Amino acid sequence: MDTHTIDTADTPPSQSEEETPWLTAREQRMWRAHLEVAKLLEYQLSRELQPHNLAINDYEILVVLSEAPDRRMRMTDLATATLQSKSRLSHQITRMETAGLVLRQECPGDRRGLYAHLTEHGWETMQRVAPDHVRSVRAHFIDRFTPEQLDAMYEALAPIADHLRGLRGKP
Amino acid sequence: MDTHTIDTADTPPSQSEEETPWLTAREQRMWRAHLEVAKLLEYQLSRELQPHNLAINDYEILVVLSEAPDRRMRMTDLATATLQSKSRLSHQITRMETAGLVLRQECPGDRRGLYAHLTEHGWETMQRVAPDHVRSVRAHFIDRFTPEQLDAMYEALAPIADHLRGLRGKP
Repeated sequence: MDTHTIDTADTPPSQSEEETPWLTAREQRMWRAHLEVAKLLEYQLSRELQPHNLAINDYEILVVLSEAPDRRMRMTDLATATLQSKSRLSHQITRMETAGLVLRQECPGDRRGLYAHLTEHGWETMQRVAPDHVRSVRAHFIDRFTPEQLDAMYEALAPIADHLRGLRGKP
Repeated sequence: MDTHTIDTADTPPSQSEEETPWLTAREQRMWRAHLEVAKLLEYQLSRELQPHNLAINDYEILVVLSEAPDRRMRMTDLATATLQSKSRLSHQITRMETAGLVLRQECPGDRRGLYAHLTEHGWETMQRVAPDHVRSVRAHFIDRFTPEQLDAMYEALAPIADHLRGLRGKP
């Protein structure tokens, strides 16, 4: 996630009354905090996965496949689940295939094509890495909220996730 | 940001009492909501910048440079400010230079090297795009919080941003 923040320090462009108002200072500080946490957290979690020779996107694929029936998914569904373009996912799966973590296979009798399977090595890798990753997630994020904050954050974010999921794929 | 979620559906690896406990269901749902919002929001904001021929990282660079004294920054400082590696930033600045948005210049008498300058075209581009971007940020994020939620989110996130900023660059 990137810190695509909004400039308020300088003179904003003149706005008619029809236009969207600029962010207030309170909105702005929250927006910047969100962007910073999203970006820095991804950076830190990635760093802590490096000793396992896994990129954070690789770990995500391992988790999604491990939760799928028969530990496999159609490439198109996997792209949707991980919010990636098909071409980017394809490159990633090629790298992960080389590392022995997944296998790409055509499904006989299914014209809709290719599946990505989690290999036994991929499954074991996820089992081995998960405790370290949970430790990172707790240390840098989850354990830094009170139980009340945790629930309040969920209440606030869940409808936004729904909204954004609904927009995805629409023109 | 990626949905590197944690598997709890399947049997977790056995853990001694010394080890970090697995995420609870309440922690898990919040963690997933955060990841999803971070990722989907970046996707949606990027999509809405496309008509302006700007990637979200480009917009960020425009904002950061526009807020800098003389609208210029040392490349190394710009990399730090945007949390990018120097090599990735260098590629991005090359693309933005081609688009006439920034200029890379050596600073006479400063051995520490290259500066990125915002061009007049870059400045005008940011001014033109910013109202649309604010509209997107409001529609998909900021206006979806109550004022109380906005402040509560800031209170919760700001210390985490501080923590993560402090870790950055450390071995």
